[in-house]
Amino acid sequence: MPIRYLALDGDDTLWHNETRFHLTQTALRDLLRRHVPDADVDRHLSDVEMRNLSLYGYGVKAFTLSMLETAIQVTDGRIPTADLEVILGWGKKMLGEPTELLEGVEDALREVLSGHELLLITKGDLFDQESKLARSGLAEMFSGVEILSEKNVDAYRAVLRRRQIEPDEFVMVGNSLRSDIAPVVALGAVGVHIPYPLTWHHELIPEDALPHEGWYRLSSISELGALLDSL
Amino acid sequence: MPIRYLALDGDDTLWHNETRFHLTQTALRDLLRRHVPDADVDRHLSDVEMRNLSLYGYGVKAFTLSMLETAIQVTDGRIPTADLEVILGWGKKMLGEPTELLEGVEDALREVLSGHELLLITKGDLFDQESKLARSGLAEMFSGVEILSEKNVDAYRAVLRRRQIEPDEFVMVGNSLRSDIAPVVALGAVGVHIPYPLTWHHELIPEDALPHEGWYRLSSISELGALLDSL
Repeated sequence: MPIRYLALDGDDTLWHNETRFHLTQTALRDLLRRHVPDADVDRHLSDVEMRNLSLYGYGVKAFTLSMLETAIQVTDGRIPTADLEVILGWGKKMLGEPTELLEGVEDALREVLSGHELLLITKGDLFDQESKLARSGLAEMFSGVEILSEKNVDAYRAVLRRRQIEPDEFVMVGNSLRSDIAPVVALGAVGVHIPYPLTWHHELIPEDALPHEGWYRLSSISELGALLDSL
Repeated sequence: MPIRYLALDGDDTLWHNETRFHLTQTALRDLLRRHVPDADVDRHLSDVEMRNLSLYGYGVKAFTLSMLETAIQVTDGRIPTADLEVILGWGKKMLGEPTELLEGVEDALREVLSGHELLLITKGDLFDQESKLARSGLAEMFSGVEILSEKNVDAYRAVLRRRQIEPDEFVMVGNSLRSDIAPVVALGAVGVHIPYPLTWHHELIPEDALPHEGWYRLSSISELGALLDSL
């Protein structure tokens, strides 16, 4: 069956995301090391985030709350409140930043737009994701938007069922093997992996956990049109 | 046209919500007054929340971040970090609490289930709302769930369009005149207002801003079946 539905992830597939988390985390490390020079801030933050995941979910607000908790714990409560205000400010800055598209995204989407219905399927904070899409200038190109709290097989199956889409007419494009590729391949749809230079460790899965067939890897979204023509 | 789709709000319509915010806010007031006895905590928090709404949206995580900001500002930074950890803990407690259904909800839904397709249309934090629904024990009764970042006319219109529902076969039930009743009445659908004892001031609108017709008021969800039979 010809591919009719082309679904794309947002964060780090259409627009930069992990970079802003990474920059903020670097700033947190610098800030906390002024108080506790040999603290392993990254590891502590990562532990706090994983512990909070089932309560907070994904997104900038969750990240900000986990940064504050980390800052208090790592410094044994000695961090001045002025520094905690700085951390609160980082969260707001991240939420308010313009949506910065990856190179070639707009042209690539225009190229595939005529032959396919475009869906945006992202994960994370509803309010933040809608706001990013609105600021991206891409909203008009998408006929549907799905913001999921978790991107697993059940969640994709529910989206396809709700939209009456067959797996063999569906392609999912994204930067995360765990969230964008593995679950759609398991459903019999095609995955297109476009790696981003930075990946949150939570999104990593060993590549040999994936079947050999049913998915492709591109180095840039600019190659998407040609790949779709070849399917 | 007969009513085929019955949509219900979640927070303070199916399960208690504002009460837990209210209790937490009372605790915050007590905590901060130990440091600044004559502080107008409620007003300060409300100002902070309104200022943050366009960045944070709704929900417990947004509320927690605004409580922390309020605590630092009201005490001029003199609040001990141990107290800020207490506030972080309140947020987690709210997110993890069991979903407590309002009286009569389960029976009322079972009564109307046979003749109607049930939709849950809520506002707020995606992750928290999905988690509350899962813990409510009601999920099986709903054929569809919509979690919106804002409940206004455009958002309801998009839901009806996406689900191919005509306004005259659609009823929306909820506790907020602003979010549940006014927008659906504007679209030509029927609203059913079931007030909750507590309402966040942001959800209040003057009742004379609503048309006299097109909506009903019930004192309890137990009356819903009889109302629907009479329409």
